[in-house]
Amino acid sequence: MNVDKDLKDDLKECGAILYGDFTLASGKKSKYYIDIKKASTDPKVLSLIADLMAEEIAKTRHRPDRIAGVVLGSIPLAVALSLKTGIPFVMVRKEKKEHGTAKMIEGVLNRGERVLVVEDVVTSAGSSAEAVNTLRSTGAQVDMVLAVIDRQEGGDDKLAELGVKLVSLLTAGDVKRG
Amino acid sequence: MNVDKDLKDDLKECGAILYGDFTLASGKKSKYYIDIKKASTDPKVLSLIADLMAEEIAKTRHRPDRIAGVVLGSIPLAVALSLKTGIPFVMVRKEKKEHGTAKMIEGVLNRGERVLVVEDVVTSAGSSAEAVNTLRSTGAQVDMVLAVIDRQEGGDDKLAELGVKLVSLLTAGDVKRG
Repeated sequence: MNVDKDLKDDLKECGAILYGDFTLASGKKSKYYIDIKKASTDPKVLSLIADLMAEEIAKTRHRPDRIAGVVLGSIPLAVALSLKTGIPFVMVRKEKKEHGTAKMIEGVLNRGERVLVVEDVVTSAGSSAEAVNTLRSTGAQVDMVLAVIDRQEGGDDKLAELGVKLVSLLTAGDVKRG
Repeated sequence: MNVDKDLKDDLKECGAILYGDFTLASGKKSKYYIDIKKASTDPKVLSLIADLMAEEIAKTRHRPDRIAGVVLGSIPLAVALSLKTGIPFVMVRKEKKEHGTAKMIEGVLNRGERVLVVEDVVTSAGSSAEAVNTLRSTGAQVDMVLAVIDRQEGGDDKLAELGVKLVSLLTAGDVKRG
């Protein structure tokens, strides 16, 4: 797909995808490294991501009532996609053991609304799954997570267990090819 | 100014400004209440705020190199203004005593760059002043904070002490008039 090639080129150009020999935080070796915040804080790349995500929304049967971004990394994506589509967004905090009283969801969310969760990079989808559960606990419907990059490390299976489909603009396979 | 009237109307319409008898968290009584996240998560209002902020930037002598949003409330403003102007943004975290190692600034920021800090509601400007200090500690230049609403409770003086000018789209005086 041409469009994915544009995105990949932009990600390389802004330094969000680097090639070389890297040791990840997990200790694993990798031939590439993703620093997605270099992309999401660059308005040109962010705008392209929002365009591509809006196309994915257009392909789905139902337009979501809300977009949800997970604090902090995917908030820029949620904002850009909201501005592009006119769909309002909410910001979902990660669970904090120490601050039990913190509001988990910022923004307006009504019972029964369909929410699309956006993510920057999905690895094992732990953070996405947590956001899905937080949103559902307020009565929202969630059936899709839309990510910029799926590292293909089990995130799709984890979300499938929750009845949620993972869609991504790029996969680790796309990125690896350099 | 017509433009401020539009913003005020939008803020009332989306429920971000409420009139009545309120007791604030500080214990003070107030005839109005501001729930700015109702505005910043609504793409129509957010887009208007970004337009008005872009006009303020156009009035200044130097175009900033970066926009900075303070986590979490003003991130949507920073993103929207970045998309509108093409100026990249950074996200500044609040100081966390318990997580000394957390990265305080997300996004690219180079020494000597001029940074415009955006804020949703400025009260005593404690959070803005902290962000200014965090940004300056990396060698950035900061001389202006641009806010949606200045509650006029000493924020301008506090920022002036740091050599920073506070500019706002609306003041408490504008809001109070109902």
